[in-house]
Amino acid sequence: MQRGLAMRSKGFEGMACSMAEVMGALGDRWGMLVMRDLLLGLTRYDDLQRSTGITNATLSDRLRSLQEAGLIERRQYQRRPDRYDYIPTAKGRDLALLLQAMVQIGDTWRAREAAAEPLHFLDAETGARLKLAVVDAATGAPLARPKLRIAAGPAADEAMQWRLAHGEAERAARSQAT
Amino acid sequence: MQRGLAMRSKGFEGMACSMAEVMGALGDRWGMLVMRDLLLGLTRYDDLQRSTGITNATLSDRLRSLQEAGLIERRQYQRRPDRYDYIPTAKGRDLALLLQAMVQIGDTWRAREAAAEPLHFLDAETGARLKLAVVDAATGAPLARPKLRIAAGPAADEAMQWRLAHGEAERAARSQAT
Repeated sequence: MQRGLAMRSKGFEGMACSMAEVMGALGDRWGMLVMRDLLLGLTRYDDLQRSTGITNATLSDRLRSLQEAGLIERRQYQRRPDRYDYIPTAKGRDLALLLQAMVQIGDTWRAREAAAEPLHFLDAETGARLKLAVVDAATGAPLARPKLRIAAGPAADEAMQWRLAHGEAERAARSQAT
Repeated sequence: MQRGLAMRSKGFEGMACSMAEVMGALGDRWGMLVMRDLLLGLTRYDDLQRSTGITNATLSDRLRSLQEAGLIERRQYQRRPDRYDYIPTAKGRDLALLLQAMVQIGDTWRAREAAAEPLHFLDAETGARLKLAVVDAATGAPLARPKLRIAAGPAADEAMQWRLAHGEAERAARSQAT
């Protein structure tokens, strides 16, 4: 059982874990950085290259991977030489939540050092500052000081159920010890 | 100017970008996976090893990196042989937002294929399903159908301002063309 757990988790993509799934689609940090720029509105190879400083071989490879993962599509805008715009798909636009979460975490870290934020998320119509918050999934009502519990969903595999049960037991033991 | 942009962005860590900062602290996918398990409540080396199937060399290295980044601390619970619990710090616990965002994105992707979710985020007291939502940063009021605009914050560097301005221009050109 213990051996089986580890063996099944060897590859990222086989795991019933959204984190692994999302990371698998992005590939690596370069893939994420390219996706960030595409979500910020850049569309052209040369601009992506300029913004990130990634080598041509890596950039071409990551664009191909992101396309194969269904996160972006390319649209030809010029022939001879052929040139393309790279545009996030609906699936790719879902990753804006990831960008926003990362920015918000970075802001929290900087706030501890009283440093300023590099990015603001605004309401496109009113210009009001927006943020991510934990809300009730059914009603959308915000929670003042949410205390989260992570539980297995219907598609949790054996490894995830083991992690959750084991983590819960360790937390209980720790809170008893202190 | 164009050359300067690319040169300054070569290294991830030098960029005034929260995504790069968060990714830099996590290191790579293995670091993220270890952090996921620690946030799920696992604390012991053997459990992390069992859950992830990571080799000993990689797991030891990632635990050291996460500690150096201030995301986790270790507490000795046994002498001869020395054994430690690995516990997320306050800075590390901020990453729960990232885990939640990834899970939510994975759920959105699965919903398109009518597949079930592996994890649920619940209110620890009431058991109600929770989710991340975009709310007004000042009032906490939820937004029904937020249309986001990403803008430069006070700490945006030249590269980030270029990305935003350029992305905005390309979006405008694209919406005019269609």
